[in-house]
Amino acid sequence: MQSTQTSEDGRQKDKQAIRETVDRWLEASKQGDVNTLLSLLADDVIFITPDREPFGKEAFAGASNENPEMEAAIDIKEIEVAGDWAWMRSFLKVRFTPPGGDATKHSGHILTIFQKQSDDRWVIKRDANFVKPEQ
Amino acid sequence: MQSTQTSEDGRQKDKQAIRETVDRWLEASKQGDVNTLLSLLADDVIFITPDREPFGKEAFAGASNENPEMEAAIDIKEIEVAGDWAWMRSFLKVRFTPPGGDATKHSGHILTIFQKQSDDRWVIKRDANFVKPEQ
Repeated sequence: MQSTQTSEDGRQKDKQAIRETVDRWLEASKQGDVNTLLSLLADDVIFITPDREPFGKEAFAGASNENPEMEAAIDIKEIEVAGDWAWMRSFLKVRFTPPGGDATKHSGHILTIFQKQSDDRWVIKRDANFVKPEQ
Repeated sequence: MQSTQTSEDGRQKDKQAIRETVDRWLEASKQGDVNTLLSLLADDVIFITPDREPFGKEAFAGASNENPEMEAAIDIKEIEVAGDWAWMRSFLKVRFTPPGGDATKHSGHILTIFQKQSDDRWVIKRDANFVKPEQ
């Protein structure tokens, strides 16, 4: 049985690993690196958003291939880790610039569930995503 | 250290306890029993919804006191338990009937984080709630 100290250390390491997953996510989004994005998703990921039915990895991949150039900044409000599960609350700002078009700003709150894989990678399992165009 | 068997039994009991929390929530909603609703929320609960800033227990209580008669049905899609934390994905249908007015139907997906209290009660900690008027 792990000591409280070791367990707390483990949780801090897991939180750091989740932050790195988020950093990789944003960097891959900026680069339009769909393969890296997909590697950070559980195979059975579900995205929940306001204006369409929940969708999975395949629909995400299809939409990502159409995405224009973007910049993004995230404010991670909190992360809680419990064993192989974790949840994170964040606020995301995104700026899309379509080819030859004007930039549009999107932002919103996100509640994300992460799952630790057998190879210790943390991937996105569920994502309740309120990001929408700023008014 | 617990055996896998015992741990799985514990998770099943926890899932059942969470389902009972949800049942109590819906029943209290129907009755307009705000005190019971508040007892099922963590003191630092945060509701995340599409069209306003995230809000906590006090704002929830204020809104609940204004709520008209309602009926609700929930479809629990999945529950995962990890130690003192759990997450649940659901779809909620609500029918509000204001005094002397016509009924309106609301529905939407919800991603909820529950936390187990020291007295073994499961309470709502975070609620990403996409329920909105049906079109």
